[in-house]
Amino acid sequence: MELHRREFVALVIGSATLAAERAQARVQAQADPLASWSEGPAKEAILKFVRATTDPASPNFLPPDERIAAFDQDGTLWVEQPLYTQAVFCLDRVPALVEARPELKDRKPFSVVLSGDREAIAKLNIHQLFEILLEAQSGMTVETFSAEVRRWLATAKHPRWNRLYTELVYQPMIELLALLRANGFNNFIATGGSASFVREYSAQVYDIPPQRVSGSAQAIHFGHGKDGASILSREPKFVLDNLEAGKIENFWLMYGQRPKLAFGNSSGDDQQMLEYVNATSGAHLAAAVLHDDATREYAYGPATGLPDSNVGTFNQDMYDMALKQGWLIVSMKRDWKRIFAFEG
Amino acid sequence: MELHRREFVALVIGSATLAAERAQARVQAQADPLASWSEGPAKEAILKFVRATTDPASPNFLPPDERIAAFDQDGTLWVEQPLYTQAVFCLDRVPALVEARPELKDRKPFSVVLSGDREAIAKLNIHQLFEILLEAQSGMTVETFSAEVRRWLATAKHPRWNRLYTELVYQPMIELLALLRANGFNNFIATGGSASFVREYSAQVYDIPPQRVSGSAQAIHFGHGKDGASILSREPKFVLDNLEAGKIENFWLMYGQRPKLAFGNSSGDDQQMLEYVNATSGAHLAAAVLHDDATREYAYGPATGLPDSNVGTFNQDMYDMALKQGWLIVSMKRDWKRIFAFEG
Repeated sequence: MELHRREFVALVIGSATLAAERAQARVQAQADPLASWSEGPAKEAILKFVRATTDPASPNFLPPDERIAAFDQDGTLWVEQPLYTQAVFCLDRVPALVEARPELKDRKPFSVVLSGDREAIAKLNIHQLFEILLEAQSGMTVETFSAEVRRWLATAKHPRWNRLYTELVYQPMIELLALLRANGFNNFIATGGSASFVREYSAQVYDIPPQRVSGSAQAIHFGHGKDGASILSREPKFVLDNLEAGKIENFWLMYGQRPKLAFGNSSGDDQQMLEYVNATSGAHLAAAVLHDDATREYAYGPATGLPDSNVGTFNQDMYDMALKQGWLIVSMKRDWKRIFAFEG
Repeated sequence: MELHRREFVALVIGSATLAAERAQARVQAQADPLASWSEGPAKEAILKFVRATTDPASPNFLPPDERIAAFDQDGTLWVEQPLYTQAVFCLDRVPALVEARPELKDRKPFSVVLSGDREAIAKLNIHQLFEILLEAQSGMTVETFSAEVRRWLATAKHPRWNRLYTELVYQPMIELLALLRANGFNNFIATGGSASFVREYSAQVYDIPPQRVSGSAQAIHFGHGKDGASILSREPKFVLDNLEAGKIENFWLMYGQRPKLAFGNSSGDDQQMLEYVNATSGAHLAAAVLHDDATREYAYGPATGLPDSNVGTFNQDMYDMALKQGWLIVSMKRDWKRIFAFEG
């Protein structure tokens, strides 16, 4: 039974005779569930979608088991500039990695990382980052990896805000996740990065349990430790690659369901997922976050009239598709009153 | 929010002031939750495990998010003799498959199936069955496949009982799933077969939603149909192979968690999962179902003193490991008062 504490409380304080829909309506009515969203078409479209899919009288009503919502992480739920958080984690591991395996020292892209040349490091492409990732996240048990991620997250800070990365989640999206959850949706993460990285904080930060985090995945190997006990360890090989169309292909492979709502921001791994969500004849909401606020966050990608970014580009092709297919485009500048919880 | 109707009802009829633990205790107290289990060590061990893991005062208490239970399907939740149900589904598709692709006609194992020689068909090994499976479950959209599985399940009947396969689930295991669910456990299926097959009935039959069914998985391909709309189709290639250690390796890959309870019955794909569950220092229950009741179901496998079965063997090596490591061995003959719901 996946019952989160806050949902449980919301349920048991209700009178014994309340029907599910009335209980949900009450949760929603308590306050503005999207307080960090500016009034306008984006907020309206979301509220309209939630009402339509949860009102049994609506032609777009979805039974609870079909309320599947999928969220990209980097650039959609939290900051992805100047580099993906998981990439920073992997880069931080390179010196120790090279010490253990000196043969990597003169090999690109490891040599680039060791050079300390920030500009060159920032230009590593996604395939080079994945090459580093494979080495930096292998050769240890699954438990050791979990502990390493947690230890890093507890101390590493973002250079611009000097805050923990887990503080750099977008408050409007946290509110959206909560609104959906309160209305019977199952929220999932569909990341281009490693599911095993995100799972270390998804429950705490997004209220999404590990089993609902999909992402790229390395092979896991069953074996035995020195004491003879069975262990699972991580191998330097991808089994699931969530880039490009891989994200929606693997979402189906893992969960066997089509999301009815999806949020993304990148042509590199969200475009096909959003296109697929949009191809349903029934109720659906495909939405893309546009990074157009250099003052409060970042502005990047051709869709903003700015040049291509090495990270999370929202290119013109995806922008054209979004307009043609009628996706919801969320402008951070226009639609988000507040970006981070720490803004107060 | 994964809230099943029966749990919801159980919750909202409770007084507004009940704590979660008391509400759960009430559900349990209503009747014997394991009515189809004979009194004895197996039933006692299960009830003891549930009490210990849900009592906050117990040293073996597990917080709800760690209550992860994994169940093999064939031979553990439903009948697997004389052939895996999914294999029967695939064999039934071979004539149409060969008509569409005549080049398969003279190729083994397809030619064996077309020969109609029941004895030879029964001797096909798991790799030959997987070869048939790959062809029989490919080249169509995910929706078409779902519809085909559902249509077949609605009419195909088991030769011995002349009942739908979905009626051949073990009532004691259905009660166990319900008991665990009522006590805050998340039940998962970990099958050697295709997750996409089991997902078509898992919610209805086991109250386990599709996203909690893991299994062998074929590649899914994103593309576009004739009308230009994006589609997902099935490819004749395995991405996840859940045989042998693959079952527990892929369970971790998909969900990032170690089951605390697991039930299986076969040396072919459950042994490593049970061994891994047993390797936890904390609370755990590794259990294996022994098919030793030829009168009411089947008796097979060296562990029963009978010869090797082509399907779901419980061999001597696994039996020795079970005894050495202290797994719970469930004898169908001794521990199950009733096997099927239709026995009345």
